[in-house]
Amino acid sequence: MPQTETRIKVQGFAAMDSKAPLAPFSFERRAVQEKDVLIDILYCGVCHSDIHQARDEWGGGVFPMVPGHEIVGRVLETGSQVTRYKAGDLVGVGCLVDSCRVCDSCGKGLEQYCQQGFSATYNGFEQDKTTPTYGGYSDKIVVTEDFVLKIPENLEPAAVAPLLCAGITTYSPLRHWKVGKGQKVGIIGLGGLGHMGVKLAHAFGAYTVVITSSPGKKDAALRLGADEIIVSRNAEELEAHAESFDFLLNTVSAAYDPTLYVNLLKQDGTMVVVGVPDAPIGLDLFPLIARRRNIAGSLIGGIPETQEMLDFCGAKGITADVEIIPIQKINEAYERMIRGDVRYRFVIDLKSLSVKGD
Amino acid sequence: MPQTETRIKVQGFAAMDSKAPLAPFSFERRAVQEKDVLIDILYCGVCHSDIHQARDEWGGGVFPMVPGHEIVGRVLETGSQVTRYKAGDLVGVGCLVDSCRVCDSCGKGLEQYCQQGFSATYNGFEQDKTTPTYGGYSDKIVVTEDFVLKIPENLEPAAVAPLLCAGITTYSPLRHWKVGKGQKVGIIGLGGLGHMGVKLAHAFGAYTVVITSSPGKKDAALRLGADEIIVSRNAEELEAHAESFDFLLNTVSAAYDPTLYVNLLKQDGTMVVVGVPDAPIGLDLFPLIARRRNIAGSLIGGIPETQEMLDFCGAKGITADVEIIPIQKINEAYERMIRGDVRYRFVIDLKSLSVKGD
Repeated sequence: MPQTETRIKVQGFAAMDSKAPLAPFSFERRAVQEKDVLIDILYCGVCHSDIHQARDEWGGGVFPMVPGHEIVGRVLETGSQVTRYKAGDLVGVGCLVDSCRVCDSCGKGLEQYCQQGFSATYNGFEQDKTTPTYGGYSDKIVVTEDFVLKIPENLEPAAVAPLLCAGITTYSPLRHWKVGKGQKVGIIGLGGLGHMGVKLAHAFGAYTVVITSSPGKKDAALRLGADEIIVSRNAEELEAHAESFDFLLNTVSAAYDPTLYVNLLKQDGTMVVVGVPDAPIGLDLFPLIARRRNIAGSLIGGIPETQEMLDFCGAKGITADVEIIPIQKINEAYERMIRGDVRYRFVIDLKSLSVKGD
Repeated sequence: MPQTETRIKVQGFAAMDSKAPLAPFSFERRAVQEKDVLIDILYCGVCHSDIHQARDEWGGGVFPMVPGHEIVGRVLETGSQVTRYKAGDLVGVGCLVDSCRVCDSCGKGLEQYCQQGFSATYNGFEQDKTTPTYGGYSDKIVVTEDFVLKIPENLEPAAVAPLLCAGITTYSPLRHWKVGKGQKVGIIGLGGLGHMGVKLAHAFGAYTVVITSSPGKKDAALRLGADEIIVSRNAEELEAHAESFDFLLNTVSAAYDPTLYVNLLKQDGTMVVVGVPDAPIGLDLFPLIARRRNIAGSLIGGIPETQEMLDFCGAKGITADVEIIPIQKINEAYERMIRGDVRYRFVIDLKSLSVKGD
């Protein structure tokens, strides 16, 4: 493969500051280095965290910001030392594009917990801690081979994109806490993360219950693979399931009273949170103590586990439920997401970038 | 052994209601049944929960209330079916005097998590859910053999008493979460529970750090077996230990910001809480997610593990640091405990009950 010696010209959409809607933005990416893969982006999922970051709701935003960390594309070109990919391969990039690679966490393939800080795919910096990263709302990306994932060719590429964040964020805790057959598992919230949690918990053989504030989501939950639904506004429904769950995956990022859910756990049960409400939650410790229950957090997943998840989804035919949009609809999509009006993930078709260079 | 056919007359101290100081109280216990052990109480530790319950600060108090669940005594008499104890044996009774014995938790020897509710040693009911229980601020107690513990004869009986609650409450989580050599463990708070946590974590071979708001406790902490002390009011001391702890045992029951402590944990580290503040604590979920950290609760310990703890303490020569008082000083002792003026546990010498019937 010839190695590109010049920087890569890229078209995309960016927020120029936290108040601006996303708009067309031209920029450059680094020339393809020995270990780099140049990817022609086909699809990019729209994560709720894209909105928080584009609007700088978490602070510290790096602008101009090109969001997007659920990237699927085809390899255009590879550096001279790249061994695992060749032009034409279907590949993915998730939330991480690099990490220190030497700390304990990186050594265990848990780059998301890199003690030096991983390089986020956008709104972050390369490992030089200086060069900003730009995400997948764009037509091309250059990523070091070790952070590129292989995508099973049997899956629909647009519907694979959300697996790179929503998929791994739910897969990783379900695997780490060994969810499977003979267990009763609750997925709290049925959005982008929750709908993947339901599909995966069901695929792992668990008795899967959706816990949602919306009674109207029952049919959708059952169709996704849930065995049952609990409407969390109904105290008697919660009470009927008290002390019966082995594991809860909480995807809610609105404020909530955790005791409602903790009381659903058996002795030694665990609730893992993957959503972050804006403010601390009020945690009553007594229900934890009374049954030796656990609350834990989990962040996306490492590169080896992300590949394992993609292979698992390939083998089982699992993808996200998506609505494909042209990038020109991104600001409207954000408004619909805030209203909860998406089943369950928007995915941008990057062909809609008119000046796309292929 | 002859079986007592009449009810047992007992002298003790009770709170007649939530406002009353503790005062002399005569009552009866059940006649010794086939599986029962009649114990002549020598010493009873004074737990902080005794104050909360005697003053009905947790609600639902059963009055008159005879507190006390850190009981050490000698067997006076045994029922005809008792096989493990005989008159003269040194024995203990902790926080539990019975449980359903058939649920999953009881089947695993985790009677403290009995799904039907265990019988608390006082301020509770026997398994008939009707007969009130009376605790160890008294000269005799009748307990079914299966909830009586054997006390190592080599230990000082008065200093053993607090092991029955403060000891097992700290031993159980340290064992369950497999604390030991090569680990850095923090004990948060240096009171009755905390001082036992330090002794036990040190005995398990962990590098043991006391985390306290009181700089004046340094010498005491080191003497108890701590390797180091962190003063939690000093942000820079906390910062210097960020992400370095495998495990934290939090014994604090005053209000606190859990993030101060959570940030001390390594990836996959766990903070176990055994104290219950009066109100929910404000928990920021992001520090849990960022390093897959855990918060869990733990309640005392089951009967088999309590015996294991006593045997371990016997083998290692571990007891509590106590101040022995006559029962007539109990109200004064409560006031001193509220001020934190005890190193580290009051223990009542029941010989001080003038009309003791032996």
